[in-house]
Amino acid sequence: MKDYIQHDEWKIIEEGFHKEDNRISESIFSIGNGRMGHRGNFEETYTGDSMLGNYVAGVYYPDKTRVGWWKNGYPEYFAKVLNAANWLGIAIKIDGEELDLNHANVQEFRRELDMKEGFLVRTYKAELPSGKVVSVEAKRLLSIVDDECGAIRYSLKAENFSGTIEYTPSVDGDIMNEDSNYDEKFWNEIAVEAGDMEGYVVMETKKTGFHVATGMRVNVFKNGEALTPAVEKITREKYVANKFAVELAEGETAVLYKYACNVSSENYDKADVLKYAKTRVEAVQTKGFETMLSEQAQAWESKWEWADIKIEGDVAAQQAIRFNIFQLNQTYTGEDARLNIGPKGFTGEKYGGVTYWDTEAYCVPFYLCTADPKVTRNLLIYRYHHLERAIENAAKLGFDNGAALYPMVTMNGEECHNEWEITFEEIHRNGAIAFAIYNYTRHTDDNAYLAEYGLEVLLGITRFWAQRVNWSVQHEKYVMLGVTGPNEFDNNVDNNWYTSYIATWCMEYTKEALDWVKENNPGRYDEIVKKTNYKEEEAEKWQDIRENMYLGYDDERGVFIQADGFFNKEQILVKDLDPKHLPIVHNWSWDRILRSNFIKQADVLQGIYMFEDRFDLETIRKNYNFYEPRTVHESSLSPCVHNILAAKIGDEKRAYEFYLRTSRLDLDDYNEDTKDGLHITSMAGTWMSVVEGFAGKRVEKGALVLNPMLPEKWNGYSFRLQFKGTTLHINVNKEGVHLSNESEKAITLKVYGKDVTVEGNTKQTLTK
Amino acid sequence: MKDYIQHDEWKIIEEGFHKEDNRISESIFSIGNGRMGHRGNFEETYTGDSMLGNYVAGVYYPDKTRVGWWKNGYPEYFAKVLNAANWLGIAIKIDGEELDLNHANVQEFRRELDMKEGFLVRTYKAELPSGKVVSVEAKRLLSIVDDECGAIRYSLKAENFSGTIEYTPSVDGDIMNEDSNYDEKFWNEIAVEAGDMEGYVVMETKKTGFHVATGMRVNVFKNGEALTPAVEKITREKYVANKFAVELAEGETAVLYKYACNVSSENYDKADVLKYAKTRVEAVQTKGFETMLSEQAQAWESKWEWADIKIEGDVAAQQAIRFNIFQLNQTYTGEDARLNIGPKGFTGEKYGGVTYWDTEAYCVPFYLCTADPKVTRNLLIYRYHHLERAIENAAKLGFDNGAALYPMVTMNGEECHNEWEITFEEIHRNGAIAFAIYNYTRHTDDNAYLAEYGLEVLLGITRFWAQRVNWSVQHEKYVMLGVTGPNEFDNNVDNNWYTSYIATWCMEYTKEALDWVKENNPGRYDEIVKKTNYKEEEAEKWQDIRENMYLGYDDERGVFIQADGFFNKEQILVKDLDPKHLPIVHNWSWDRILRSNFIKQADVLQGIYMFEDRFDLETIRKNYNFYEPRTVHESSLSPCVHNILAAKIGDEKRAYEFYLRTSRLDLDDYNEDTKDGLHITSMAGTWMSVVEGFAGKRVEKGALVLNPMLPEKWNGYSFRLQFKGTTLHINVNKEGVHLSNESEKAITLKVYGKDVTVEGNTKQTLTK
Repeated sequence: MKDYIQHDEWKIIEEGFHKEDNRISESIFSIGNGRMGHRGNFEETYTGDSMLGNYVAGVYYPDKTRVGWWKNGYPEYFAKVLNAANWLGIAIKIDGEELDLNHANVQEFRRELDMKEGFLVRTYKAELPSGKVVSVEAKRLLSIVDDECGAIRYSLKAENFSGTIEYTPSVDGDIMNEDSNYDEKFWNEIAVEAGDMEGYVVMETKKTGFHVATGMRVNVFKNGEALTPAVEKITREKYVANKFAVELAEGETAVLYKYACNVSSENYDKADVLKYAKTRVEAVQTKGFETMLSEQAQAWESKWEWADIKIEGDVAAQQAIRFNIFQLNQTYTGEDARLNIGPKGFTGEKYGGVTYWDTEAYCVPFYLCTADPKVTRNLLIYRYHHLERAIENAAKLGFDNGAALYPMVTMNGEECHNEWEITFEEIHRNGAIAFAIYNYTRHTDDNAYLAEYGLEVLLGITRFWAQRVNWSVQHEKYVMLGVTGPNEFDNNVDNNWYTSYIATWCMEYTKEALDWVKENNPGRYDEIVKKTNYKEEEAEKWQDIRENMYLGYDDERGVFIQADGFFNKEQILVKDLDPKHLPIVHNWSWDRILRSNFIKQADVLQGIYMFEDRFDLETIRKNYNFYEPRTVHESSLSPCVHNILAAKIGDEKRAYEFYLRTSRLDLDDYNEDTKDGLHITSMAGTWMSVVEGFAGKRVEKGALVLNPMLPEKWNGYSFRLQFKGTTLHINVNKEGVHLSNESEKAITLKVYGKDVTVEGNTKQTLTK
Repeated sequence: MKDYIQHDEWKIIEEGFHKEDNRISESIFSIGNGRMGHRGNFEETYTGDSMLGNYVAGVYYPDKTRVGWWKNGYPEYFAKVLNAANWLGIAIKIDGEELDLNHANVQEFRRELDMKEGFLVRTYKAELPSGKVVSVEAKRLLSIVDDECGAIRYSLKAENFSGTIEYTPSVDGDIMNEDSNYDEKFWNEIAVEAGDMEGYVVMETKKTGFHVATGMRVNVFKNGEALTPAVEKITREKYVANKFAVELAEGETAVLYKYACNVSSENYDKADVLKYAKTRVEAVQTKGFETMLSEQAQAWESKWEWADIKIEGDVAAQQAIRFNIFQLNQTYTGEDARLNIGPKGFTGEKYGGVTYWDTEAYCVPFYLCTADPKVTRNLLIYRYHHLERAIENAAKLGFDNGAALYPMVTMNGEECHNEWEITFEEIHRNGAIAFAIYNYTRHTDDNAYLAEYGLEVLLGITRFWAQRVNWSVQHEKYVMLGVTGPNEFDNNVDNNWYTSYIATWCMEYTKEALDWVKENNPGRYDEIVKKTNYKEEEAEKWQDIRENMYLGYDDERGVFIQADGFFNKEQILVKDLDPKHLPIVHNWSWDRILRSNFIKQADVLQGIYMFEDRFDLETIRKNYNFYEPRTVHESSLSPCVHNILAAKIGDEKRAYEFYLRTSRLDLDDYNEDTKDGLHITSMAGTWMSVVEGFAGKRVEKGALVLNPMLPEKWNGYSFRLQFKGTTLHINVNKEGVHLSNESEKAITLKVYGKDVTVEGNTKQTLTK
């Protein structure tokens, strides 16, 4: 737990240099634009503790896996978004003395992330060992307008001396991932080119052969006048720099502008990336830093218009929710169906930047309501493009007839994870992918998506489920053996209720989708039937499985049984555990965790959350009251689901507690791991906590539902929702719920259980 | 499957050079003397496929583990017996042309392992590319009399030329393990010293700091005359050699003797190993090769007197059983309680040479009956010395009060294995260690061992079990959750019958042992009580657990249930599986194996084997008939237990089939893995198959029991048994069972259900 981040509605502020927490700050002050991103590393040389991080979306390296005892079916590689060329560097020497905050007396240090306008600024005064004092303001952005480009304005004032400032702005491709499994470097050099106040490095990823050209152009000014200093061009392997000097008299200021770009062979011929890098960086230099800044502010303004949540009366909560929304929008913009959302986004190496079920379960609900439907559509199409690989993956595990098992973690559709209990057994991920299709269509009415893409994915997934069950002579039911549920604190269990439930739901929904496409797009239906060799008997089999699936239920307690044998475990509540044991994942051996009844994150409750409209309130309450007290929430994805269900059953106090646990997770380093990067996907959970938890947003029978509550500590909160082409502004305060339909067409929704129609461009206020 | 090994009663013979199978032959022609061992590598340079292997017992290296996702409680290191300095090398150039069987026309090649006298001899005629032909006989031994020493006689005849033979005998310490996790070398050089026809290398293991001095002395003769050639002394890093030349006229023969030793700091001050190496090697050189050979033959003769099994009418079976007995005796001699038996002995790197429960479950029964009781006693004391570490290991996993969990694999008592489902969960190994103590005392009546060592071990083990169970509200019984049984094809199961059964047996036996020591050695009892802080309430708790332990039983089928949920699995028999799927461990993904009902090796049946006297024949039959058809026997330890039980229930045909599967496992490369080394510990299982399977040897109520059968294909078989100080020779043939009591005192045993007393130095013949 840390609390050095200053509270502010629109800014993330570090006052004073927290050297020992520099890796945490580097994570928090990460910036990105969906196409690339980097951690809050310094421009000057810094010899203190730091984790360098520059990432180019979609450019990955398949690192050879590290494994103890190989198991048949393990993947040989783990794809990682790799640390790319660093173009931030501006080394500075003052009369030959290196400006390095690790060896300076640093005063008035301030880092500020302006979320409203989308830039990062850092100011400080540094006294060097020689006694010379400089004041610095370094401002930078990654443009969401020119999304291959970024820029820095680096302003330096000689406070108490006259002297020579030697600048060495660089592009350094000689970069290594900290998490390289075998201490290898992942990049080869293709070209290095130094110009006069410019430089380029073209690098190629090993194995995958991506080419990325990183370019820079530099200007320098003194007292508002452009300078043309003599430039020493420096090149060495994988590295280019310009060195030049500026003379400053005491009190004078030099301003250096560094424009940069990353141009990748994902989008151009390899032969052209250098050419385009030159064009791009020249274009933004011509545009100029100030114009870039103002375009950035405008672009962010329209993002905020869709996605902002305003909270009144609680600055810490306001800052936190905006930070989460800001980071999500920095990570994924939805314009490229080849990209997805890594658990750490562009803020660290952990989890390799690969795609988990987090995307479907947590991020899709966020983007569905706060962005153009095409954003979610692209997330779905990403999985459509990986269908063949998912079928190959299932085949590798012994399944056939087009059964598809999507990987637990992936970059290009191939499985990257290699722990059998996860890789082969945490198969509920398949269900989340199907559910996201359902979620998309019920929010958008874009059923055409089913015909075009969705149905094939659903069919592959359902075929997998149908083969994954077997008939049990013990239960005289179909059973699903050897799985790991969302509760990864139990492995290789039989009949995990959540997995079995979502499997049968997939069978139901796939049949509905088949019927819909058959009726509404018979040509496409025939095409799919032919392509997939689908037989109608398959649906009959699904029906049989659905009707005879074993789903554990405990009569005595009135709860669904998480998995076979759950009641063999010693029943202890988290509150009765000596807190010194928490988190158990750090304090207990794995077998002890597995034997315990402690649950990592929502499991039965994940299913109840997703299929809430199929359970009565009493069932929800009983399951919540049984499972939540046994849940240690040792996944950042856990609190939001519990917040939503606590709100549902009217436990406002617990709902708010869960909200606190999720919203400032990174800003306050709640889990002591912010240094590794931000919990990007769980940030969507914070948004869910407000919109689905406090505001009670649901979709039921095709209609929007709201049941807002106002947390006691807040004066009010408001946000916009996209729903089937309508934009609805919702403001909840002590007076009631104020709805404003900002679209032309009327919307009928249910608020506090009553049907309400809000005509186009009108407002209504409702009370409970 | 291979069949190039010639059948012979006392010899292992390879006729013709099987170049493509060289690694297999290297394993099969391994020799050892309990203190060291090496694979059947060539003396001359060989550039073909080969796996070099020289091992010094007890000298290990903790290699950094390779693991995917770290789990709390994993060990950081995996101790490995490491590949040590190679002293076999005698590089030979003939008029400058290298003698290398990879580049020669090899004729009349023959390798022969003489098991009766304990030496290895290789003969061949090689035509070099130049057309020169040499005949070679290379004979070598590792002395079991001078157990730090070995010797080679290398005889070379110039068949069709006169020329210069240049010899370079060497000691090469620049050796690497093929299984090094991070491609590291494990040895540093301490000293290299070259003399005139002698040389020494002193190496130090990294991390563990063992010093091993390897020395050589060389003589060379021509036509029976000792030569004193001019010697070039060669030293380089980690390497020493002598180079000299011998002129041979056509038809002349040169004989080179190379004497060598390994002297380890396990037994001497580090400062002295070089000094002792010089003494040792000089001593054997003085003794001379022929004397060493004859001493070796004598020493082996007395080993064979105790351990031999003679089979009449089946040369392949005779060869196989002797090979197994020979290898066991080469691997472990029982003189040093710091040593143990690695699954591959000194024949390969796989499994790192570390100790598994194989020792207690398979090797102890062998040594108990075929060797002085001190041999087994030392195997037990090995575990006694590791008790503190086992207590630390359990503490790491959250257990207290002196609970001990012995490691799954170990060198020095620390756990080396790092797969959670094995390391933390395959805890039945603890039971096998307790059972070995019981087995030792019932074979020797050495109950004093209990007081001196055994009781403390039993107490630690039983305390572990008592903490490892928990009360289940589901079963209203004590349950044992999250274990892996001997059937490693199911993981993290609840209530594995074998584990739970042996746990309760441990509680019973520990209480008996406590009572025995209390009554017979009250002083020692008080000492142990004080040292371990034992309270009598503990035994009451054990009693409560024993009386209320859940042990799954299936009424319908009349079988013990391997683990909870076994009858959820689809019930398929191995015979109904398409053979293309076998072995499933190579053809199926791990999850598929786990979901299946296929069993890797005896699990319920392992328990029935160990506690056979507690079950009636009908129970044994039902469990055998249920579980065996579901068992794929994909562990070399599986067939012997099934052989014994098949014999027990009178299924002679199946018993013989299992015997065939185990006895020539390595000679015929049955599992296609002999190249990695021999299955040393499972070789004891072959012995068990004959003695406990065919001869039906048991110990019941303190008495020896025999129920011999004669496999149809055999004319007879005979062996000796050690039992409570008596040596009994048993000869089973078509006439009956011939017992010969070779001791002074009488022995009363049960044969075919009838009590028989054989007076000292008398014989009896019995029929069924």
